[in-house]
Amino acid sequence: MNIDVDPAAADLRSAGLAAREATRILARSSHAARQHALRAGAAALRAAMPAVLDANAIDLAGYQGTPALRDRLRLDAKRVEGMAVGLEEIANLPDPLGRVQTEWTRPNGLDFRRISTPIGIIGMIYESRPNVGADAAGLCLASGNAVILRGGSDSFNSAQAIHAAIVQGLREAGLPEACVQIAPNTDRAFVAAMLKAAGLIDLIIPRGGKGLVTRVQAESRVPVLSHADGLCHTYIHAAADTAMARTIMKNAKMRRTDVCGATETLLIDAAIAPSLLPEILSDLKALGCDFRADARAREILPDLTPAAKGDFSTEWLDKILSVAVVDGVEDAMAHIARHGSEHTEAIITEDAAAAEQFLNGTSSAVVLWNASTQFCDGGEFGFGAEIGIATGRIHARGPVGVEQLTTFRYQVRGSGQVRP
Amino acid sequence: MNIDVDPAAADLRSAGLAAREATRILARSSHAARQHALRAGAAALRAAMPAVLDANAIDLAGYQGTPALRDRLRLDAKRVEGMAVGLEEIANLPDPLGRVQTEWTRPNGLDFRRISTPIGIIGMIYESRPNVGADAAGLCLASGNAVILRGGSDSFNSAQAIHAAIVQGLREAGLPEACVQIAPNTDRAFVAAMLKAAGLIDLIIPRGGKGLVTRVQAESRVPVLSHADGLCHTYIHAAADTAMARTIMKNAKMRRTDVCGATETLLIDAAIAPSLLPEILSDLKALGCDFRADARAREILPDLTPAAKGDFSTEWLDKILSVAVVDGVEDAMAHIARHGSEHTEAIITEDAAAAEQFLNGTSSAVVLWNASTQFCDGGEFGFGAEIGIATGRIHARGPVGVEQLTTFRYQVRGSGQVRP
Repeated sequence: MNIDVDPAAADLRSAGLAAREATRILARSSHAARQHALRAGAAALRAAMPAVLDANAIDLAGYQGTPALRDRLRLDAKRVEGMAVGLEEIANLPDPLGRVQTEWTRPNGLDFRRISTPIGIIGMIYESRPNVGADAAGLCLASGNAVILRGGSDSFNSAQAIHAAIVQGLREAGLPEACVQIAPNTDRAFVAAMLKAAGLIDLIIPRGGKGLVTRVQAESRVPVLSHADGLCHTYIHAAADTAMARTIMKNAKMRRTDVCGATETLLIDAAIAPSLLPEILSDLKALGCDFRADARAREILPDLTPAAKGDFSTEWLDKILSVAVVDGVEDAMAHIARHGSEHTEAIITEDAAAAEQFLNGTSSAVVLWNASTQFCDGGEFGFGAEIGIATGRIHARGPVGVEQLTTFRYQVRGSGQVRP
Repeated sequence: MNIDVDPAAADLRSAGLAAREATRILARSSHAARQHALRAGAAALRAAMPAVLDANAIDLAGYQGTPALRDRLRLDAKRVEGMAVGLEEIANLPDPLGRVQTEWTRPNGLDFRRISTPIGIIGMIYESRPNVGADAAGLCLASGNAVILRGGSDSFNSAQAIHAAIVQGLREAGLPEACVQIAPNTDRAFVAAMLKAAGLIDLIIPRGGKGLVTRVQAESRVPVLSHADGLCHTYIHAAADTAMARTIMKNAKMRRTDVCGATETLLIDAAIAPSLLPEILSDLKALGCDFRADARAREILPDLTPAAKGDFSTEWLDKILSVAVVDGVEDAMAHIARHGSEHTEAIITEDAAAAEQFLNGTSSAVVLWNASTQFCDGGEFGFGAEIGIATGRIHARGPVGVEQLTTFRYQVRGSGQVRP
């Protein structure tokens, strides 16, 4: 990037160089120092409550988005307190750094240890949800990573105010302020510069809608940890406990329809569909759910809306469920391989052999047996907060918490060994 | 990519789709089946010896490269036997798939297991060294990954003959032939198509010179595991055992100068340099090594060639050593952070505290204490063969063997749990 003609690239470059310097201290900082920064940041955030709410009021003043988006942007005392508590909870997580992941000794006496270390510099690109910036800063800090935040333009003032409080925490803990930086303005060229910053930023994490994530995936020269789709399937096997299947489906589809772990497609075995499918769909219909069914499902329930081309590849994120009848585990896995997004799938069955076949034959990041797909969440996994969900094939998959924000290094201890 | 106007993209797409289908069987194949394919491939390679040597003769006939490159391209009975033995050694490695990496149970009774699984489809781009294709195919197969090989154009006929033998092994083991595919021609557009094939290829591994690797890193839309530079440092601390330091430096620099783990820069503490530096450099000079020294080293040995701008950032891969005098561990680590490539660094000292400071403060993939940097090798790590060395910050770092060619999936076993 030519920084002479691109001020945003110059801004990013200076932020990246400052972050690199900061990581040399942060990567070696004690857990206590990082905990201190997180707790002091939480306190500073509470102290800055009026300033944060004022900044948020400025963002809201000119805001033109939908009521739903406006609500995501809006802050109140309860939400700011929630961000502060979030930072304190992250501070209470065990230290993910310096862990000996594996250790062995070679015949020549060399002692090998693989230890967890920070990734380095994270570029966090998110939409106008101020709390995402606070969570991301907390998770990166806890894992010893510097972070450069670039939130949605509509939340610029809110994000700046939150960032100021977190920097205050860094200052009180004696850690470099450059550990957590934020885009200095709303220039979109800064995002482009982040995506070009291979060597300066080690990992980009986009958090937001499919449009944002797919654009980042397509344009980034820096490795990306993300998921664009959460096209999750629940497969009801012929040997399912019908009461359990009904309970799980209601939760998997309807607990929240707007989360990436929500089930979008129901696959049900032909052997059990005639008796069970009507019960399950009436449960869901009673909760306001609508359906898109394949021909075999419509043989059982002719009034169902036929699935249009592409429906089985559509993440509804709404009270809509795609429904298909399948012939056993292999057929279900083939459907998932064809239409899925490698996010989360579940099988409901009392047949352990069928369950293992599904657990071992499905390549998605998270595969469940007799549980709701909505469990795909860092908190539910026991990771504490999550910075996102990853559906790629490398580094981390599934919920990304502090442990997934680390990499490793080999330490080799010898006594003068040379290679023959 | 518009496959209508790009036949190479069409070739890559059909290879990728065939590979994806193949992985659905390969990923679930038994270790025995993969071992069978590797051993049968080795036998087929031996049986095909005449055909392989004839193909290699065709490649050599028109070859215009340097004698060194010609030697890399050249095959003989011994080298073909070496490839066969390599496949058999890979077959003897423990199965990297299906391992429970970690397991825990949540208060709600959900049982979580993180198990190792294949990455999926590897795109292997290498130069005209036929054995690299055989090793890569073996390592990918052993780890349950399909691979698409694209070797150097000058080795096209040799690579095709080797590939045919490996496919014979797949056939005999009853595994899909599409598990190991090779570029159908020498069209350079096929490489470009591989680098664009996000979603079709899961990981690109370039193996070769800096030119190839940096081009792949710069152009790839697919995640890349690689190293462009091996700018390794050996730091001799003030408390070093001088005899050990001399022995290790001879090995680290001169055992082989053309490998990425060879030491390129010697850093030595000012406190010990006046007495030890002359001895070390005379050892190396006796082996034909030349030097590029900073001002402080030249105060001790005025006849040394001054280091020019950029010398400390140059990977010599030759009988040349950059030399700098430093003031302790922090100064040495600062030099490494400024000039290094995150590959391999070593400290030589009898002072355990200084060693730990270096081991914990250096972010390179491999950090050694009292051992030669030339130990950065999959075989020396006990991984068996390696497909390359990675110096990035995500997924795998250091030597990449079968275990590093895996990713993971979460299996969650429940009894009807739904999310509150």
